[in-house]
Amino acid sequence: MAVTFELIKRCPATGARAGRLYTPHGVFDTPIFMPVGTQATVKAMSPHELAVMGAGIILSNTYHLFLRPGHDLVAEAGGLHTFMQWDRGILTDSGGFQVFSLGPLRKISEEGVAFRSHIDGSKQFLSPEKATEVQMALGADIIMAFDECMPYPADHAYAKASTDRTTRWAERCLKTHNRKDQALFGIVQGGMHRDLRAMSARDLVSMGFPGYGIGGLSVGEPKPLMYEMLEETVPLLPADKPRYLMGVGTPDCLVEGVMRGVDMFDCVFPTRVARNGTVMTSRGRLVLKNAEYARDFRPIDPDCGCYTCSNFSRAYIRHLLKAEEIFGLRLTTTHNLHFLIQFMRDMRKAIIDDSFLSFREEFWSKYPTP
Amino acid sequence: MAVTFELIKRCPATGARAGRLYTPHGVFDTPIFMPVGTQATVKAMSPHELAVMGAGIILSNTYHLFLRPGHDLVAEAGGLHTFMQWDRGILTDSGGFQVFSLGPLRKISEEGVAFRSHIDGSKQFLSPEKATEVQMALGADIIMAFDECMPYPADHAYAKASTDRTTRWAERCLKTHNRKDQALFGIVQGGMHRDLRAMSARDLVSMGFPGYGIGGLSVGEPKPLMYEMLEETVPLLPADKPRYLMGVGTPDCLVEGVMRGVDMFDCVFPTRVARNGTVMTSRGRLVLKNAEYARDFRPIDPDCGCYTCSNFSRAYIRHLLKAEEIFGLRLTTTHNLHFLIQFMRDMRKAIIDDSFLSFREEFWSKYPTP
Repeated sequence: MAVTFELIKRCPATGARAGRLYTPHGVFDTPIFMPVGTQATVKAMSPHELAVMGAGIILSNTYHLFLRPGHDLVAEAGGLHTFMQWDRGILTDSGGFQVFSLGPLRKISEEGVAFRSHIDGSKQFLSPEKATEVQMALGADIIMAFDECMPYPADHAYAKASTDRTTRWAERCLKTHNRKDQALFGIVQGGMHRDLRAMSARDLVSMGFPGYGIGGLSVGEPKPLMYEMLEETVPLLPADKPRYLMGVGTPDCLVEGVMRGVDMFDCVFPTRVARNGTVMTSRGRLVLKNAEYARDFRPIDPDCGCYTCSNFSRAYIRHLLKAEEIFGLRLTTTHNLHFLIQFMRDMRKAIIDDSFLSFREEFWSKYPTP
Repeated sequence: MAVTFELIKRCPATGARAGRLYTPHGVFDTPIFMPVGTQATVKAMSPHELAVMGAGIILSNTYHLFLRPGHDLVAEAGGLHTFMQWDRGILTDSGGFQVFSLGPLRKISEEGVAFRSHIDGSKQFLSPEKATEVQMALGADIIMAFDECMPYPADHAYAKASTDRTTRWAERCLKTHNRKDQALFGIVQGGMHRDLRAMSARDLVSMGFPGYGIGGLSVGEPKPLMYEMLEETVPLLPADKPRYLMGVGTPDCLVEGVMRGVDMFDCVFPTRVARNGTVMTSRGRLVLKNAEYARDFRPIDPDCGCYTCSNFSRAYIRHLLKAEEIFGLRLTTTHNLHFLIQFMRDMRKAIIDDSFLSFREEFWSKYPTP
């Protein structure tokens, strides 16, 4: 098995758990936050900086790499790890989420999805087989089944048909996949319908994947509804396999996801808001472009040990952001990723120490209500 | 004296010389190339990366910092070194070049230059006194006298009047300057007129500056004319003081400038072309976006030891540039700055080894004619 999971500790009061993922590119503690490197680079960062801050697995996007530079070119380079010089873990998504986001530019059938490239408008096609082949060529440690990420809201009839198709597609992905050095995860769908979430989970579990994505959440629904869907889904997944909540990465959702038994997360949130000048701290977010930071010579977060906070002031970073300097984006991105990685480490420690509930309580006591 | 210069070796056959600059922020070998950090950051780079590649002094722009974030704010931060966390040398220009580049947005008088900010259109004024005060507040190790960088071509009458005014301004700068921990350099002007270059050099030397800028060159004139002006100017400058050719930084001009006795250079060239995807090698430039590099898995320059060439392929960097990823700009900038810093080191070694002329010959044998 390319990827195995070791369950180290369960929280006695909640679903939270601490574990360890074994991959061909290292062993990584869970729960884990995976920075997003859409186009074979985590925006603004070097792979060495990611390693220094303790990043374990990063996510890269099949849709983008399929279109540019092409999976064949990446394979010729020796695979994604060699191409981008990242020797730790990589997970690729299936491209499903991206092609479904294209809206009118795509057409779905039982066979797969026809779409037009956002780069040059060229006609393209992704199917379960093709998405799996592309991901085998890219060579990530963990790859994802090709699924339909349905729109929100979706009525029960549409959601049922879509979820059944995702299940049939998952079977085709499994049949196509033949790389022993990478793991193929199934993706639970079901929209916001409890019965369909349960159906999807049971159907996929019966196929025996080495891990499970939970897809189609954080797509615009209220957070309590997302948590409800997690509560419906996660208990049906095997305890000895990792669970990955796709596209989720704000601190509040990380805490609530972990509490409900999720092990892996990814999100563009920390890197995207960083490039707009928003940084996370244990007391909430700072919008660094605001005038109040012009003469604020303190670090972003005095309690943070990241490169940014160890060296630079809010005033300097604000200056860089106002002047549209690249180094400003590097500094905010570095801080936000470090913040989330450290946040997951702290959460894991709390699980190990049997103090997860008080960790959560303390988190919410400081976290500003939205 | 804040900055002193030690002449270590003269080339017996040319004007080339190897020396050492002593500043409050370190000792730096000359000839030296100074990366440009216009807005208190060398674009795309961290100060730590600059230090690793061996950068000694960097240049920052008074005009830009005066307008944003303001010299008073920088002073409040503890000065430019602290603000940007760069503990090696800094040189600030006077702002003269920038305000004269504003064209119709500026109006010159004996008193100084009135201009409108390129950021918000606000009315601003810089004079010799003000430019010096701003630079004292910024706190660089070397600061420059406020001069007029006249347009090219400029007729003899205009050039004479302008050069005389620059000389009067230099006196006012000297009178204003009172920081013992920084050195104020005069700037030789004179347009493309040999007699005015000589006049300017003699006038400034009589004031006894600790170093001399050579300004108003590389402003559109043919390169042979620039070299002629250098030959007219440099021999008139004191041998025991550093000479700084402002705004020059292509490899050919660096070799020719050093041959004529220049010790210091700065230019946006390596960083600016890097952000367009052009990189320098010992065999000429590569335009990395070109299709021929799509599957070229070699480093930019197999002989280069920089971070970029030690880790990443042309194909990967091309992918990043095509995808407009920040990390691509970081990699090309890193390479180009490392290339020029190493180039200056090699040139200095050749001077020390009495082999500067063969260094120059070999350089030209490989350098493509433009």
